[in-house]
Amino acid sequence: MKVEELLITEAPQNVNLLNGKLGGENVRESIKKLRDLRGIFEDENTRDLMDEDTVVYKVRVHASVESGVEGGLLFGTTYLMPGKVGNEYFLTQGHFHKIGNRAEYYWGIEGDGVLVLMNRNRVCKTEKVQKGSLHYIPANTAHRVVNTGNTILSFGACWPSDAGYDYEEIKQNGFSVRVVEIDGAPAVVSML
Amino acid sequence: MKVEELLITEAPQNVNLLNGKLGGENVRESIKKLRDLRGIFEDENTRDLMDEDTVVYKVRVHASVESGVEGGLLFGTTYLMPGKVGNEYFLTQGHFHKIGNRAEYYWGIEGDGVLVLMNRNRVCKTEKVQKGSLHYIPANTAHRVVNTGNTILSFGACWPSDAGYDYEEIKQNGFSVRVVEIDGAPAVVSML
Repeated sequence: MKVEELLITEAPQNVNLLNGKLGGENVRESIKKLRDLRGIFEDENTRDLMDEDTVVYKVRVHASVESGVEGGLLFGTTYLMPGKVGNEYFLTQGHFHKIGNRAEYYWGIEGDGVLVLMNRNRVCKTEKVQKGSLHYIPANTAHRVVNTGNTILSFGACWPSDAGYDYEEIKQNGFSVRVVEIDGAPAVVSML
Repeated sequence: MKVEELLITEAPQNVNLLNGKLGGENVRESIKKLRDLRGIFEDENTRDLMDEDTVVYKVRVHASVESGVEGGLLFGTTYLMPGKVGNEYFLTQGHFHKIGNRAEYYWGIEGDGVLVLMNRNRVCKTEKVQKGSLHYIPANTAHRVVNTGNTILSFGACWPSDAGYDYEEIKQNGFSVRVVEIDGAPAVVSML
């Protein structure tokens, strides 16, 4: 019956639950700078005059499976810097998924921000992102995170590896709301 | 342009990053007791003589989408009690997914345990589960967690809502290894 004893090995990956830091195998990083976000902020003239090497966000992904594989999952942490372009807070570019019905989970880790969700009819809603907030991004819902605080906003995410990114739709039509500073506080304003 | 200001609402759900506790909308709980785990432990005679109302584990799921929906995700926390049936540690029943290529993420939150992974050829490997361990469960891989400690083992999970559960395969053929206590310490023994 008991022919052999097998070793119990360490998990090949780890995540710091308190700050989202990923360690171990297969961690990949992508960086978005102001130069990569042309046309994304309302005040493109101001963005153009800012230092285009300014990092807006970094995404670290635990990629145990290649993008595009059906049935797989990816797991990541995004670090969104504090800052503004004009009166508009730093944000992630935002996207629908290429396969429209693919959902995603986000959870807030550190900092303060807003998740903007927009359906195919361009109807938006917003949810506060903060330590321990949990966000379900349903099918056919564009999603963008905005850092409304003075510190790095970090959040975790888990999504299907075949979801893909439809960035073009947002590049061309944007979201129907923007998150801006008014009288020193964040406000969501409709662009319709 | 700015025709209205919209409210920033709280996230409808939350998760305590340190202990995995889910709060807010759509949290569902399922409980597995010793009575639900007939035939799962090696020593069925001992299990049969124990109090069958003993809770072995609880799973709390943030269910924003129904099981079976393609493209959706579920997010949960499992609390696996400490205990043994004979010399075999308390465990989750374990399963392949009904749609074989559906993956899953686990992450350790509290306590000490072992994740047992088994492919379709019945080849097993094990990974330590502990605070901050991160586990990718690939396609066509049965998965079971075993609590080798003296405290509750809790772990988080995210998986596709259409993955489904093939419990029958494990009920009939089990895993090809078991995690047992030998000389006061956990050991993985082959059942082949």
